Amino acid sequence: MRVLVVGASGTIGKAVVAALRGTHEVLEASRSAGDARVDVTQPEAIRGMYESLGAVDAVVSCAGGAAWKPLEALTDADFASSLAYKLMGQVNLVRYGIPHVRDGGSFTLTSGVLAHRPQAGSGAVSLVNAALEGFARAAALELPRGLRCNVVSPDWVTDTLAAMGQDPSAGVTPEAVARVYVASVEGGATGQVLPAARG
Amino acid sequence: MRVLVVGASGTIGKAVVAALRGTHEVLEASRSAGDARVDVTQPEAIRGMYESLGAVDAVVSCAGGAAWKPLEALTDADFASSLAYKLMGQVNLVRYGIPHVRDGGSFTLTSGVLAHRPQAGSGAVSLVNAALEGFARAAALELPRGLRCNVVSPDWVTDTLAAMGQDPSAGVTPEAVARVYVASVEGGATGQVLPAARG
Repeated sequence: MRVLVVGASGTIGKAVVAALRGTHEVLEASRSAGDARVDVTQPEAIRGMYESLGAVDAVVSCAGGAAWKPLEALTDADFASSLAYKLMGQVNLVRYGIPHVRDGGSFTLTSGVLAHRPQAGSGAVSLVNAALEGFARAAALELPRGLRCNVVSPDWVTDTLAAMGQDPSAGVTPEAVARVYVASVEGGATGQVLPAARG
Repeated sequence: MRVLVVGASGTIGKAVVAALRGTHEVLEASRSAGDARVDVTQPEAIRGMYESLGAVDAVVSCAGGAAWKPLEALTDADFASSLAYKLMGQVNLVRYGIPHVRDGGSFTLTSGVLAHRPQAGSGAVSLVNAALEGFARAAALELPRGLRCNVVSPDWVTDTLAAMGQDPSAGVTPEAVARVYVASVEGGATGQVLPAARG
């Protein structure tokens, strides 16, 4: 398959690219490098990316961030940027991508464990992650030509925990997370939230 | 208790007001009538409402709509208005309301069954409803002074089904839905999604 990975330069994105390569033709997109550069907060940039790359069989998004702050410190701007980046950036990868994905192809987005297991500081992140799951369940019902749409929900990743000074052994490795994306691309699931947890 | 009901003029809002009255002092707010007029898409309008009404013990939101259209007919503007109205309108009722709700008080928001049981046409609605649930779960962890936050998720309401030309007996009555809001206001639950289904 010809698979586009958006957010290919991040911790999870790199692992997804590595897991797909060999079996598939992988196109990498990110803000600053790759086969295409794209800022997913900009609708025109997403459209331009799809036009430039041509048809693909699958789109994997590991793109987007959301604000992590105490509830009462989250500003209007924090919510707006979280909605524009991790939420609508990924929603728009689906919406604008439909004409560019071949029959029977797929979209795989990224939410995260905070959707259902929030922590102090995750008000905006939990909102965005849960929203992505609601969207994917609904979009899957209406995608044309047998297209599929799933969301991978990674637990805390070892690298992230280490960067936060926490015990990485409590997390899931990027390689294990990547296998869940591969299953979404290669399998038949649609409308599903696929957890990527410590195995 | 002194309870503010935002969206008091809608089908569910009216039933919630009726169910609370008698036991509680009820303040009604809506776009066009009531003790306060508020357009929840306007942050300054929410702040003004809270300033004008004084301290309350509970805030119930039955406010907000989201676009219902086939996936490929939903526009950027449909998503933006859905996010601004039903999602951030209600999120901002919590964020801006914190200083105006007395110790131990509560916020009760409205999502809906489409968060988890989508239908064709519910792409934006399912996104918004799921997002509200993710936010409420997270916000509940951080609200100060014993404040609580829940989301009521109504199934299809009889009146709505009738208006759509469908069998109303498949739905839940506004009175039954209202009882779930009352339970959120008077009970001790927090961070919960409270289903209001046909009983």
